[in-house]
Amino acid sequence: MSETSRPSGYKIALDCMGGDLGPSEAVAAAALAIRDGVIGPDDTIILVGHEDNLRLLAVENRIIKSKRIEFKNAASIVQPDDAAMTVIKSKRDSSMMIALDLLKSGEADVVVSTGNTKALVAAGTIKVRPMEGAERPALAAIMPRREGHFVMLDVGANPEAKPEHLVHNAVLGSIYAQSALGIAQPRVGLLTVGTEEGKGGARINRTHSILKAMGEKINYIGPVEGFDVFGDACDVVVTDGFTGNVILKTIEGLVYMLRDMVGQKVKSNPVYLAGGIAMFPLLRELKGKLKPEQYGGAPLLGLSGLIMKAHGSSNRQSIASAIRLGMEALGHGANRRMLAALAEANTVISSTPVEE
Amino acid sequence: MSETSRPSGYKIALDCMGGDLGPSEAVAAAALAIRDGVIGPDDTIILVGHEDNLRLLAVENRIIKSKRIEFKNAASIVQPDDAAMTVIKSKRDSSMMIALDLLKSGEADVVVSTGNTKALVAAGTIKVRPMEGAERPALAAIMPRREGHFVMLDVGANPEAKPEHLVHNAVLGSIYAQSALGIAQPRVGLLTVGTEEGKGGARINRTHSILKAMGEKINYIGPVEGFDVFGDACDVVVTDGFTGNVILKTIEGLVYMLRDMVGQKVKSNPVYLAGGIAMFPLLRELKGKLKPEQYGGAPLLGLSGLIMKAHGSSNRQSIASAIRLGMEALGHGANRRMLAALAEANTVISSTPVEE
Repeated sequence: MSETSRPSGYKIALDCMGGDLGPSEAVAAAALAIRDGVIGPDDTIILVGHEDNLRLLAVENRIIKSKRIEFKNAASIVQPDDAAMTVIKSKRDSSMMIALDLLKSGEADVVVSTGNTKALVAAGTIKVRPMEGAERPALAAIMPRREGHFVMLDVGANPEAKPEHLVHNAVLGSIYAQSALGIAQPRVGLLTVGTEEGKGGARINRTHSILKAMGEKINYIGPVEGFDVFGDACDVVVTDGFTGNVILKTIEGLVYMLRDMVGQKVKSNPVYLAGGIAMFPLLRELKGKLKPEQYGGAPLLGLSGLIMKAHGSSNRQSIASAIRLGMEALGHGANRRMLAALAEANTVISSTPVEE
Repeated sequence: MSETSRPSGYKIALDCMGGDLGPSEAVAAAALAIRDGVIGPDDTIILVGHEDNLRLLAVENRIIKSKRIEFKNAASIVQPDDAAMTVIKSKRDSSMMIALDLLKSGEADVVVSTGNTKALVAAGTIKVRPMEGAERPALAAIMPRREGHFVMLDVGANPEAKPEHLVHNAVLGSIYAQSALGIAQPRVGLLTVGTEEGKGGARINRTHSILKAMGEKINYIGPVEGFDVFGDACDVVVTDGFTGNVILKTIEGLVYMLRDMVGQKVKSNPVYLAGGIAMFPLLRELKGKLKPEQYGGAPLLGLSGLIMKAHGSSNRQSIASAIRLGMEALGHGANRRMLAALAEANTVISSTPVEE
């Protein structure tokens, strides 16, 4: 299994400034990753941000003398509500943009950022470029289900996905599920509105035909409906960035509403008191689980370099988990396998006739 | 308020055979609707199905002598897994198709059916035809939020909606929210993936431009994200039938999963025992609330005749509620107002330039 043993010497660029909890949490995450061996003796984590501040935090976290850390100064910070174009045009000196520069130049193998998703997707795509065979990146979320987790992609990078983009999402998501969830042959489902032939429209039908034509190159189980997503129907749910993003955010909104309803129920009826109090931790846990990046981070797949998005509100554990997922993906040679899988998929795409 | 006082003499065709609970529940619903005055002295409810059986059930429910009921025999039944084309081509003698015939011929003003959604949408569209100014119908679900309810449409009739269809959904949904939720000026939001200009793609941008150009003809509040859906951002959530259907079913799947998780939590830890037991009714209530048709029924808007879809598992109260919602929509003159609103919308659509 030479593929799964990690070659030494990876470089991780950590954007330390974008998170809601500030750089102290990012530097603490780096310290955790070093202590736990996620950052090995030959690896380097490059802390990107206000260097003076980061050095002080590294002292506090007792990693200032570690040979595994480096610093890269960045003068500005991307704010949560900065428009993507503003960041790209006017914040070239931000920690996010400088971390992406390191990835582009090969000085880093992976970028981990808690920054503004829209800016990260747009700047990442422009700076790092799609990998050979892909046209658009896809953001891949890991979500909980009854037993374990599944991957859903795209959850927001490419809202107007064409059939070939959906096929790319299927192969990229399948390989990511192997490294992130440890599933050898992930079952891939295509999200649609009905499993009858002809339901869901021309875009879904064409995607379905191509995925069927791929045969054993992918473990494609066919169309799945919204109802199947939280069941055990498949391990990778393929959809466009519009539908995926709306699902993700709707679910987050629903979980907040549930918490409020439990709270109100408790107030309205003493019978619910014990129940409500006992259920709060469950709902809190669930709310956390349902945020995609709480399971480490959501990678932007299909680019020449690996970018891991961690949630803006991530604490040190969540950021450390994003670092770990990024290291695992690198260690599994995901990039090389994605290139090969995209080439195979593109051969099938061009040889599958478009039905009228 | 002549518009809200119901003119007498409506005819309701009730498809009695499509529900999971069988015709006994449908006939009991008719009896409830008569007893509660939803079916007034001059109205008629036409029970469609196996006439002999329906007459026996009418005797049991003590409505056999009511002047408000009629019977229409239908030899076959649409099954839950019947393909739409099979129903249209080979089940013309089914209770669903015969009920739709009554609507088409003007012998009924509204059809209420618990049958297979896909067949009802397809057969309804073909038989009853879109109303003047509309091209495609939209299924409108009523869903719970923190306070009260909101309308979401389309939840499954037209998966590949164009901008003009989305604009039609906005005006139809707005008028339906007036009669169903009693909101005078419903706030209408367009579901998308980001509220920045340019996010969500060309289809959403064009829809947004048209809705803005409609000015005071509609209370359009702008784009909304998935996160806003269960908040208090708007009363009508406009989306295409693909996204809407996937959201609806995903939420239903999530609520089932939550119930299972609470069950498991209770087993795993005695602290949760009281909580779990106390919370079951809440989750059951919520699961019910989140099924669109539990709030009476989901109308198929944009057709020349009114069709109300009730959930396949509806009990007598749910079916009676669907009958009531249908009667209220008729009484509010929704059809006439929808025709006028569609004409206005189409004027704005044709005068709003397509941006490049």
